[in-house]
Amino acid sequence: MTRKKPLPAPLVSVTSLTLKARKLGIDTRNHFVAVVSGNCSLCKSAGFRSEARIQIENGGEPIIATLYVASSAWIKPGEIGLSSRAWERLKVKDGQKLIVTLAEALDSFAYVRAKLHRKVLSDAQFTAIIQDMVQGKYSDIQLSAFVAASADLNQKETTSLTKAMTASGRVLKWSGFPIVDKHCVGGLPGNRTTMILVPIVAACGLTIPKTSSRAITSPAGTADTMEVFAPVTLTLEQMRKVVDQEGGCIVLGGSVDLSPVDDLLVQIERALDLDSHSQLIASVLSKKMAAGSTHVIIDIPVGPTAKIRSAEEAHVLKALFVDVAKEIGLAVEVVETDGTQPIGRGIGPALEARDVLSVLKCKKNAPQDLRQRSLFLAGKLLELCECVPQGKGHDHARRILDDGHAFKKFEAICLAQGGFQEPTLGAFTHKIFAPIAGRVLDIDNRRLARIAKLAGAPDSPQAGVDLDVFLNTDVEKGDPLFTIYADSPGELDYALHYFHLHRDVILIGEKP
Amino acid sequence: MTRKKPLPAPLVSVTSLTLKARKLGIDTRNHFVAVVSGNCSLCKSAGFRSEARIQIENGGEPIIATLYVASSAWIKPGEIGLSSRAWERLKVKDGQKLIVTLAEALDSFAYVRAKLHRKVLSDAQFTAIIQDMVQGKYSDIQLSAFVAASADLNQKETTSLTKAMTASGRVLKWSGFPIVDKHCVGGLPGNRTTMILVPIVAACGLTIPKTSSRAITSPAGTADTMEVFAPVTLTLEQMRKVVDQEGGCIVLGGSVDLSPVDDLLVQIERALDLDSHSQLIASVLSKKMAAGSTHVIIDIPVGPTAKIRSAEEAHVLKALFVDVAKEIGLAVEVVETDGTQPIGRGIGPALEARDVLSVLKCKKNAPQDLRQRSLFLAGKLLELCECVPQGKGHDHARRILDDGHAFKKFEAICLAQGGFQEPTLGAFTHKIFAPIAGRVLDIDNRRLARIAKLAGAPDSPQAGVDLDVFLNTDVEKGDPLFTIYADSPGELDYALHYFHLHRDVILIGEKP
Repeated sequence: MTRKKPLPAPLVSVTSLTLKARKLGIDTRNHFVAVVSGNCSLCKSAGFRSEARIQIENGGEPIIATLYVASSAWIKPGEIGLSSRAWERLKVKDGQKLIVTLAEALDSFAYVRAKLHRKVLSDAQFTAIIQDMVQGKYSDIQLSAFVAASADLNQKETTSLTKAMTASGRVLKWSGFPIVDKHCVGGLPGNRTTMILVPIVAACGLTIPKTSSRAITSPAGTADTMEVFAPVTLTLEQMRKVVDQEGGCIVLGGSVDLSPVDDLLVQIERALDLDSHSQLIASVLSKKMAAGSTHVIIDIPVGPTAKIRSAEEAHVLKALFVDVAKEIGLAVEVVETDGTQPIGRGIGPALEARDVLSVLKCKKNAPQDLRQRSLFLAGKLLELCECVPQGKGHDHARRILDDGHAFKKFEAICLAQGGFQEPTLGAFTHKIFAPIAGRVLDIDNRRLARIAKLAGAPDSPQAGVDLDVFLNTDVEKGDPLFTIYADSPGELDYALHYFHLHRDVILIGEKP
Repeated sequence: MTRKKPLPAPLVSVTSLTLKARKLGIDTRNHFVAVVSGNCSLCKSAGFRSEARIQIENGGEPIIATLYVASSAWIKPGEIGLSSRAWERLKVKDGQKLIVTLAEALDSFAYVRAKLHRKVLSDAQFTAIIQDMVQGKYSDIQLSAFVAASADLNQKETTSLTKAMTASGRVLKWSGFPIVDKHCVGGLPGNRTTMILVPIVAACGLTIPKTSSRAITSPAGTADTMEVFAPVTLTLEQMRKVVDQEGGCIVLGGSVDLSPVDDLLVQIERALDLDSHSQLIASVLSKKMAAGSTHVIIDIPVGPTAKIRSAEEAHVLKALFVDVAKEIGLAVEVVETDGTQPIGRGIGPALEARDVLSVLKCKKNAPQDLRQRSLFLAGKLLELCECVPQGKGHDHARRILDDGHAFKKFEAICLAQGGFQEPTLGAFTHKIFAPIAGRVLDIDNRRLARIAKLAGAPDSPQAGVDLDVFLNTDVEKGDPLFTIYADSPGELDYALHYFHLHRDVILIGEKP
């Protein structure tokens, strides 16, 4: 049979569908996921198959999502289910109509392919890639290929990537000069120098608009610990007000949209457990540039279980940091510090906050390692900004801390952020004692962190682990080794179960 | 408060949970996806967060899945929702209890990281990677990093990868010798030489256990076209029986489990649109080795819209094919053929089957390009096996085809596979005519394929596009250009809509 009847008027695009929004409520982190029914004949003929990339519009900026096809009855033909992030970004309501099309080819990915074949990319090519990423056009698989392709960038390319990442989000401007900042490469448990350094340098009259992050895999991030004292989720406007008034702040970085592509890349790097110097540098420096910093001190802890394991590696990283910083016009001082053991006594937000507070209040029993590191870094930063002559930074910082100015400034910052409160600890505790006499030969940081997390940290800020001993401490049988804190008996048991399977988390042996 | 009560007995592992299986019915292709509730406190304390990799057990071999956390009520605390593939692999029933733990670190990924830093990997390292992949331990992100890392392998590494991929699945053994095969790199629309070559060489007494694939993005794969004539989904045992009896078969490769990792890698390569010579060669040669082949002819069509675009690229690829084949002990002949336009007239399973049948039946109006290519490749294969003297293959193949032996063998193979039936075409058709007189200057293969797919191919085997003209055909105004076939008026309209937006799919211009 041959049809001769007149044809209907052409559509704008034959593959553009109108589908009804359904909330899936699945958290797929930074990437967008959508689900349609396998019985949706329109979806089928439009070429919608599992793992296709589709564009979804709701009036505003469209998003690109990864599609999956469902055979269950819970998603019906004509519907499109959206993951939490996609739902939020599109600002949809249940049942609303969305325009859905197959996503166009990703032109900038040609540069990633070129990079995989060892080509050197230009500024413009990195910019094209990063712009597409910030618009959510890269799938996880594509992001992973980019991360893999750029594992070994040269200095020029690292500079290009840093600039592109800086430009991908908001760039803050401040009236003062210098604008200072501090970064630690690969945190050590309990290493909360930021919360002591910020009030010291702010008390010296410098401007330090510090953004920090929450814990991702550790029992506490700086933002979690700061939140024990004061609110940290501030809008950019609120943050500006705090900084204008007090010269410094310690707020959660996520809400301020600095170098937004960095979060995407870090998530992939974490999934691959891949540490690349060039990506580390682009990540750190782009965030600092975007925050409007002019002078930055970078702390590289070096130790066998730290992120940077040898002095050689630290030197190579330091040289690349310095070269790229120079290219982008940032004054940077990189210092290498001891990364062999945790800093302070507490592991977990409130316990770490208690350590910070005891240092700021210059208490006798304050952890001296935390105090000394904070003074060392604050001093270096004061010298970098030429606030004080070379070699005089440490003394100056110590005076500001010891005469109470730093604590006053810290209290003022907390109040400006929304209120100050003292830390309190978990009500359910259990002390672990030395089973034999001897010397502490090893502390397994990874497993101690695990115990703190099983006890509830960081979701329960009052939970964690409090150490009584350090590396090389001599103990008698029955001496306390550490205390577990929890908010509930269940969580305490949970942490204890784990400890009983790994009793050598603190290894005691013969004194040499 | 300090607890002193005795501790419960230690668990085997504190992070091993028992969760109730729920079917999600989401098709996430080759990888396994699981969903738990955000309100599941056990899941939380076990460190189950979105994008974590978890191990799931149901008595037999465990699987590794990517986890997502849902906030909706449709997945309850204590439940774990599974994607279709995970559900099938674990052989679960709704409500069954599964043991779920965080997956252990993936040791072999250290080699991928090393490769990203330009290290050369050994046989053993490739084997470790591929073994972990075949056990489903690699996430998509990790697979993507591997594909990226191995975009530029040297010949030795390509050989190692090929061997590791061969060993990753079943390796078939056949009693005869030689065992022959044929592969085309980057198919052209309508290029169904396999279905003519197989009966020719089988009729010559050679053993050719051919496995083919269905269409993934094209309107028809060889398996789809063969299925118009006969069943293609055979078990290994059934396939053996056909080959024992007839010397050849054309069956669907998927069910036979040859080089199973290849499917995982191809899926990622397709998502990245990344063509790597080394991965192409490892993919092709590992499948051939696993199929038990000893002599293989490889066809590389070269043309501006083909996969391989220039003679230079074809030469480089050919050299690497030959070198790696030699290392693994496979006799290979690589031929470069014309890849500038579609082969035959039909696009879509039944239309292509009709072309194949007219060649096998030596009909006058059979597409000569399809006939000639098939004879050329069959002849080369006969020469490679030393069945006939060099230079005599083409003539020998032609005799087998022209005297009806090839068609008889084809019918016999179809019957052995389960029955032979002649192709029928879609009932709803629409002819497109030349709007002006002139010469066919360009045929847009990509868009023609799109029209065939919108008309329903390959899901409706009878749908597709039938060409009346070729490149450089001279036409008068009103001459037929092509006909669209569909199974329903709706699908026909759908294809026509698209054509009316892209009327230059066949470009007619002035005769030079």
